[in-house]
Amino acid sequence: MQFFRRDEERVTSVDMSKTGTGNFFEDFRIGQTIRHATPRTITVGDVALYTGLFGARFAVQSSDAFAQSIGYPRAPVDDLLVFHIVFGKTVPDISLNAVANLGYAGCRFLAPVYPGDTLNAVSEVIGLKENSSRKTGIVFVRSTGCKQDGGKVLEYVRWVMVRKRDEAAAAPGDHVPRLPEAVLPSTLGDACPKIDVGAYDVALAGSPHRFGDYAVGEKIDHVDGVTVEEAEHQIATRLYQNTARIHFDQFSAAQGRFGRRLIYGGHVISLARALSFNGLANAFQIAAINGGRHVSPLFAGATVFAWSEVLGKADVPGRDDVGALRLRTVAAKDHPCADFPLKSGDEDYPAVLLDLDYWVLMPR
Amino acid sequence: MQFFRRDEERVTSVDMSKTGTGNFFEDFRIGQTIRHATPRTITVGDVALYTGLFGARFAVQSSDAFAQSIGYPRAPVDDLLVFHIVFGKTVPDISLNAVANLGYAGCRFLAPVYPGDTLNAVSEVIGLKENSSRKTGIVFVRSTGCKQDGGKVLEYVRWVMVRKRDEAAAAPGDHVPRLPEAVLPSTLGDACPKIDVGAYDVALAGSPHRFGDYAVGEKIDHVDGVTVEEAEHQIATRLYQNTARIHFDQFSAAQGRFGRRLIYGGHVISLARALSFNGLANAFQIAAINGGRHVSPLFAGATVFAWSEVLGKADVPGRDDVGALRLRTVAAKDHPCADFPLKSGDEDYPAVLLDLDYWVLMPR
Amino acid sequence: MQFFRRDEERVTSVDMSKTGTGNFFEDFRIGQTIRHATPRTITVGDVALYTGLFGARFAVQSSDAFAQSIGYPRAPVDDLLVFHIVFGKTVPDISLNAVANLGYAGCRFLAPVYPGDTLNAVSEVIGLKENSSRKTGIVFVRSTGCKQDGGKVLEYVRWVMVRKRDEAAAAPGDHVPRLPEAVLPSTLGDACPKIDVGAYDVALAGSPHRFGDYAVGEKIDHVDGVTVEEAEHQIATRLYQNTARIHFDQFSAAQGRFGRRLIYGGHVISLARALSFNGLANAFQIAAINGGRHVSPLFAGATVFAWSEVLGKADVPGRDDVGALRLRTVAAKDHPCADFPLKSGDEDYPAVLLDLDYWVLMPR
Repeated sequence: MQFFRRDEERVTSVDMSKTGTGNFFEDFRIGQTIRHATPRTITVGDVALYTGLFGARFAVQSSDAFAQSIGYPRAPVDDLLVFHIVFGKTVPDISLNAVANLGYAGCRFLAPVYPGDTLNAVSEVIGLKENSSRKTGIVFVRSTGCKQDGGKVLEYVRWVMVRKRDEAAAAPGDHVPRLPEAVLPSTLGDACPKIDVGAYDVALAGSPHRFGDYAVGEKIDHVDGVTVEEAEHQIATRLYQNTARIHFDQFSAAQGRFGRRLIYGGHVISLARALSFNGLANAFQIAAINGGRHVSPLFAGATVFAWSEVLGKADVPGRDDVGALRLRTVAAKDHPCADFPLKSGDEDYPAVLLDLDYWVLMPR
Repeated sequence: MQFFRRDEERVTSVDMSKTGTGNFFEDFRIGQTIRHATPRTITVGDVALYTGLFGARFAVQSSDAFAQSIGYPRAPVDDLLVFHIVFGKTVPDISLNAVANLGYAGCRFLAPVYPGDTLNAVSEVIGLKENSSRKTGIVFVRSTGCKQDGGKVLEYVRWVMVRKRDEAAAAPGDHVPRLPEAVLPSTLGDACPKIDVGAYDVALAGSPHRFGDYAVGEKIDHVDGVTVEEAEHQIATRLYQNTARIHFDQFSAAQGRFGRRLIYGGHVISLARALSFNGLANAFQIAAINGGRHVSPLFAGATVFAWSEVLGKADVPGRDDVGALRLRTVAAKDHPCADFPLKSGDEDYPAVLLDLDYWVLMPR
Repeated sequence: MQFFRRDEERVTSVDMSKTGTGNFFEDFRIGQTIRHATPRTITVGDVALYTGLFGARFAVQSSDAFAQSIGYPRAPVDDLLVFHIVFGKTVPDISLNAVANLGYAGCRFLAPVYPGDTLNAVSEVIGLKENSSRKTGIVFVRSTGCKQDGGKVLEYVRWVMVRKRDEAAAAPGDHVPRLPEAVLPSTLGDACPKIDVGAYDVALAGSPHRFGDYAVGEKIDHVDGVTVEEAEHQIATRLYQNTARIHFDQFSAAQGRFGRRLIYGGHVISLARALSFNGLANAFQIAAINGGRHVSPLFAGATVFAWSEVLGKADVPGRDDVGALRLRTVAAKDHPCADFPLKSGDEDYPAVLLDLDYWVLMPR
């Protein structure tokens, strides 16, 4: 059944099922490289739909004229749209049989993406660990997004708990990779060309607050809330060609543990990022994602709020145009965030949806 | 009232209603040609929205780079998006007063369409048959979609049952055209340039199964299901500028036989086509539609599943790059298709929505 | 807190909130100029999404080929999409603390906008009037939309009732500007290049009725109805980067006077304009908006109908290609408009949503 992308020879038996059922835990091998379908040309159409779905207002991504004024050839595509498209490609091969998406690490944006670029994705299996139940195992992959010319635009490590097809099957490997706690500031900035800070118009950008105006420990309530509709998250997730059925199939979901379609975790990240404009308007680029937890599931009808804390500040070596802020952005459902809610330890805090740790670039 | 496109002289009476009420059965004439409004330039924006609404993953339509690697100048527009846009133009003139959309025949895709092309539509009335009740009649039209330069991109025959405005009116004609049971393989392939099969990357395309790997009689369960929301089908149907009010007007629908907005039948075709990727990933182009039945209506909230059967295989004369598969794709609601449900004869099978018979091209 | 765009010096205190709370009545000054965030490049993606959301069918905006045939370089962007995008930019600075949006006047479209153009917005405060309660005041602004090169594309006066932050604060000014009852015909037409009327194809445009075919006093029922979904108005309003939270936040709305998300008034205008195609297919451009009232609020689930009356006809000086029709278009909810409903005086007519007075251009 595991015909995806690993057969060198053509399959000729017509009795064989043509339907992709995805890989199970025992199908993976350490060192294995998986080239994912489907290549995808990003266009201004995708950008418009992403704007309609999330309403982001960062000037660099919104305006060709603004982007050009500071040194870009044109407005780059929103970093998270790039992330979602690359991520979506990995789903049919990596996580179609996942029980849980456990984490991310070392996610770096490596080059700007512009409308017209075509994205591909490749994953390398870098770790495998069977669970004690022998029913599932953890698969660690390093996924890379590339342009049509092979240039890398994104890489990240992700680990997921995947079912075994056959519980009696031997574990296909036993290695847990060492993962970075955070992306080093010295590796940030590849996706941001040197910008002309003098030309960066803070009035047009929506806030006078630059890198120097933020302090470690500062907390920002992003105030606004946005209610999510089924049609919205379905359109978004299909735009990324993400096929995880739990997001789309109410008939089957009705029989599952939630009884409802589960919203793609990346949808919450994009909502929180768009909300964060109110307080972080000049955080015009996500340079890296250190890690993140989807603390609880989101379902349609809930209203998402968010707040952020400045976890750190760093110079980017060789760059006097931008500095890096390390942010923790927390999203919560049906709970305005003036009280900066957190989920930690044993505390029961059902409102918290997301706890994301990432680096943004800001003009100095 | 039938002022649409058939008046040579300008209408000058200001007392006359300006509102289009569509044509009734007695307004049609055999041989009559109707040029439809509104010309429509298809763009990458339409392509993106179509992706967001259906999530199709066929590599040729998704990636300029992939399309170019096999010989296209760029990614062509999805065939069904072209169909829906041409179809939508015919609605105000042909089927605004339709009781039922009875069938299609001889639908052929004649040239690739690319973003930037403008589509127009013309219909010729090729048959008229009053029903014995004298309240309605069947109108047969051959509709043709053309580009701005007049080149044909699509043609199909459609027949609809249309109300009479005045039951006492004489039948405007009495002729039932002979219609092809299926499109001949020798006429397929016009919308597909000669492709470089050696460059067709099956890993990127998502499946190793080529033309030779499919056998007549083979059945494929496409597994995945997708739940339809009101906002989704309304956005899709408006994108095609299809004005049939039953899709949009809940106030009036509440008083009708369904009590609900009826989803455009073409929406089901596009959903089934997108689902069919899982099992038919290399069926990159629809070359022709032999016929199809909308077996039962679809309403928002239902989950659509699909399966396909290979009805036939054919060589395309002069082409060693692609072969043609004749497929039957069946869509069902709230019913996973592992049991290959069909509606035939007297059997009561309310789950089946669509039974579509069409030709696809696949690389050899 | 009023850090938006009025500080010349950089704010450096990290204790200060970074969150924009918008301006309150006492923050405005007569003569004050506010440059709004966020600049926005309009693309064919925005055009496609706008089509999907409203289904407009005016040939000039729908087809590059049609637009070129009459003298445009390509299809211009729908006037109302331009309006909504400019309007959206003003919200965070002008009306985030508004109690009510009271009116518009003197709205003129000054130049055609094409995909690729970037829009900015600036507002000048031209009037301030505290209410007798001293809790709120009326702010009058003249807002101007410009292209990247500074050329004006749109201007309008708007007045809103805005809360005071501190009731004890002194009124910041006391002046009510004189506003035009209607835009003068002599100032219309700037956004419409001279067109080749002979090449204007009424069959493709969808109606034979030209300027000469309409009479003052004529009423047109636009017949069709369209039901609005939450996802649709949210996507539309985010597309314009309009951040008014009442449109998006069900959690907070549930505690407010309506208990529901209120749909952006501009959404009703766009729906009515799209419906008006049926009867006004050749009213290809909105040249000016004289004024308008949002008579009652719209919520998701309602079905919108519309009708229009010809209030006046005018020649446009120096133009023999187009004439100007002054229209009143009325939208109503869950009420087909064959009886031409109006809300006037004390009469209770809850169905009426919108009463819009505007000028359109039509080919002669």
